[in-house]
Amino acid sequence: MKTILIVGIGTGNSEHLTVQAINALNRADVLFIPDKGESKADLADLRREIIARYVTNPNSRTVDYAVPKRDAANPDYGNGVDDWHAALATRFATLLEEVPKDGHCAFLVWGDPGLYDSTIRIVDRLRSQHDFAVEIIPGITSIQALTAAHGIALNRIGEPVHITTGRRLSEGDLPSDTIVMLDGQTAFTGVDPDLNIFWGAYLGTEHEMTISGRVGDVAERIVEARRLARQQHGWIMDTYLLRHRD
Amino acid sequence: MKTILIVGIGTGNSEHLTVQAINALNRADVLFIPDKGESKADLADLRREIIARYVTNPNSRTVDYAVPKRDAANPDYGNGVDDWHAALATRFATLLEEVPKDGHCAFLVWGDPGLYDSTIRIVDRLRSQHDFAVEIIPGITSIQALTAAHGIALNRIGEPVHITTGRRLSEGDLPSDTIVMLDGQTAFTGVDPDLNIFWGAYLGTEHEMTISGRVGDVAERIVEARRLARQQHGWIMDTYLLRHRD
Repeated sequence: MKTILIVGIGTGNSEHLTVQAINALNRADVLFIPDKGESKADLADLRREIIARYVTNPNSRTVDYAVPKRDAANPDYGNGVDDWHAALATRFATLLEEVPKDGHCAFLVWGDPGLYDSTIRIVDRLRSQHDFAVEIIPGITSIQALTAAHGIALNRIGEPVHITTGRRLSEGDLPSDTIVMLDGQTAFTGVDPDLNIFWGAYLGTEHEMTISGRVGDVAERIVEARRLARQQHGWIMDTYLLRHRD
Repeated sequence: MKTILIVGIGTGNSEHLTVQAINALNRADVLFIPDKGESKADLADLRREIIARYVTNPNSRTVDYAVPKRDAANPDYGNGVDDWHAALATRFATLLEEVPKDGHCAFLVWGDPGLYDSTIRIVDRLRSQHDFAVEIIPGITSIQALTAAHGIALNRIGEPVHITTGRRLSEGDLPSDTIVMLDGQTAFTGVDPDLNIFWGAYLGTEHEMTISGRVGDVAERIVEARRLARQQHGWIMDTYLLRHRD
């Protein structure tokens, strides 16, 4: 039986790799590198750097694959994601053919495979037609890179933390201190200006940026920093914590 | 100026160490090992194993320190924690004297220093009387080890996740899929039996245990497994995800 290794590689700092992840990459016969187009070539390069630095198995090879685009114009978010995952599953099935019998292959996933990433779900879609084992290797998430960069704890003593998306944040409630992921719409500009925000982009990388303060005081500065950085790098990955002030 | 390295070491699997954490441990002149008494000697041993495996700096040394106990009988949880942190800060101030001028010291923290751990906060208490720098190194949390062990994603597509404590869970609401940490009271026995639970203990270690299913079907099995494991090992660290069923 073939084994699919879904390996968390952290947030773009090659030193986020765990020993477990390095050992997993070295068990793979085939390492898959997604190609998301020119503007995100940096990201493919980072994966290549990680492989160059840590993979010492002389019998492994990398296979590039083009990532289909999600139809962002689909007004039904759930359906749009579903179609996109179906297209990715078809691509993954083709990739599996590259793996030798009883061999191992690896997907390198930013952050942790369990947190706002779809690789696990897409691989699960193949189970009805293919027989394989899956191993998941945890990785450092942008949440941990964020709090480390700001030198703060994620939770206040004994208090809960909410993790949500920019889309959901726009819809309203903030039940407790909240981490926001996947916010392309700078939803923080619409929240209570008296909250504190701890924002970070390119966390863990040489381009790491952090800004913190009262939302009302720093929101515009973050919007502008985001805009410039996105222009400069062609992509941005950012996240933030909204904290109720004491 | 002295530097305090607060290093996340993962959940007890020595392969959870990141390259960044290994490099940080090797920059330390002094590595602090907390002693929490005989029943938790396993935990001190795991820290020692990690140091033996990864620290190659011949000039570093380890310093053991006794951890004061939190007064669990204090009816005011906040005050009890505050007193405990004050006692720990006094202990940490003494430990700082062990560090050479301009030297580095390291605290090895289970999981990630930002998630339900107090080391950052206790070190912050020393700032008024001592001058030092702090670096935080992220680590794999039990949340990531839990979802990896179950082969699931933490969040459903585009959905939020709540992280809370056993104490809070007992008080009521479950706004969304919820991770529960620090639950010594098996609060899951009091939730809607139609939720799904993904439970894990000793995650990432050789003693890893996982149980999943409908709460109403598996809660008693988890309570019994916890009781036996705690008896056998003298301690338990567990966490779980409660997921609304589709």
